[in-house]
Amino acid sequence: MPTPLDPLRDQLRAFASARDWDQFHSPKNLAMALSVESSELLEHFQWLTEAQSRDLRDDAKQAVREEIADVLLYLIRLADQLGIDPIAAAHEKMIANEKKYPVDKARGTAKKYTEL
Amino acid sequence: MPTPLDPLRDQLRAFASARDWDQFHSPKNLAMALSVESSELLEHFQWLTEAQSRDLRDDAKQAVREEIADVLLYLIRLADQLGIDPIAAAHEKMIANEKKYPVDKARGTAKKYTEL
Amino acid sequence: MPTPLDPLRDQLRAFASARDWDQFHSPKNLAMALSVESSELLEHFQWLTEAQSRDLRDDAKQAVREEIADVLLYLIRLADQLGIDPIAAAHEKMIANEKKYPVDKARGTAKKYTEL
Amino acid sequence: MPTPLDPLRDQLRAFASARDWDQFHSPKNLAMALSVESSELLEHFQWLTEAQSRDLRDDAKQAVREEIADVLLYLIRLADQLGIDPIAAAHEKMIANEKKYPVDKARGTAKKYTEL
Repeated sequence: MPTPLDPLRDQLRAFASARDWDQFHSPKNLAMALSVESSELLEHFQWLTEAQSRDLRDDAKQAVREEIADVLLYLIRLADQLGIDPIAAAHEKMIANEKKYPVDKARGTAKKYTEL
Repeated sequence: MPTPLDPLRDQLRAFASARDWDQFHSPKNLAMALSVESSELLEHFQWLTEAQSRDLRDDAKQAVREEIADVLLYLIRLADQLGIDPIAAAHEKMIANEKKYPVDKARGTAKKYTEL
Repeated sequence: MPTPLDPLRDQLRAFASARDWDQFHSPKNLAMALSVESSELLEHFQWLTEAQSRDLRDDAKQAVREEIADVLLYLIRLADQLGIDPIAAAHEKMIANEKKYPVDKARGTAKKYTEL
Repeated sequence: MPTPLDPLRDQLRAFASARDWDQFHSPKNLAMALSVESSELLEHFQWLTEAQSRDLRDDAKQAVREEIADVLLYLIRLADQLGIDPIAAAHEKMIANEKKYPVDKARGTAKKYTEL
């Protein structure tokens, strides 16, 4: 079944294949790369206040945009190597989250709320 | 312009709004959460060989699938708070990557290849 | 030359040796484990305000204390596998930092200050 | 009671104080910086095989050495802001680890061994 991320997935396959990079793209290595890119994204925010992070300057926003792209690309590539559909997984997780965080208990509190 | 991630983006908006969680969802905090989820994903691979990581057991694959979902959800949420379209950003990054890693120079080598 | 972290280093060597874990303790894997532990530490702070993070509750402080221990232990173990003395490296880095961040330019600003 | 990391802790205090950086050094921000530095360390290993990571070239080892220094410095700074003694915490953790991973059960297996 086609999914909305198929075009990027296919581009990444062709990109890696043309460079003979499948040998480096084990799930272990891709999970490392994904984590490293997430930290590069995080780095842009580490000395900002929360208020500043809600109102980025244009150059910072452009840099953050590129890191978001890197995270998404590695996520799609990793999921592809594992045969996982990230969109379907996310939809299922949203259903689980609705149960895990009932509105009446979760409203306005971050207590016990350590992850979505 | 509608994008393929709009349905998840809208679900996440409604989810946060119903719980009054926008106050916690500053880009700074969401970038932290994204990084933490990427590490939870990484944790599943840390003691595996690369070969083992290419052939996960079913229970490990299911756990990894849920972490992939978490990373995608926080990425969509973070991008939304910043007004960034992750799909468009990823397509642009692929064009930049084609230039940065010319096939004839990048073929079969991970040298200087520290990130996509 | 003996260093202040030698006792922990030696304990970690004996610990790994008794369990035949040197086979898993490649620098690559230890760097992953260190990064994962740093994220577990980070997780405790992700939904706190900066003010709250300066005034942790006792149970949170105890949990953070254990994560700090984990990070230090993996750092010592990784450095040992690479033949690196972390204390000497840190002293040298402090000298470099004094030059990189001159007091008169760095005073009161986090601009360009993306890392120590 | 004096600990082996006191000299670095005191240097870091003086360094931050001279630059008026205590305002940026909330535990939340320092935990982010520590995590970012751990990922910069990880980045050096992401495309290496485990065997390659056990036998780094000189330039790579020097770069890794500096990242190890950064991680240690932020760890000391974070612990100081929280009033935590990292050495004492690590010694206690080693005692807990001896119990958690009995030699006869943990020998030669990374199963269930997701963290020290």
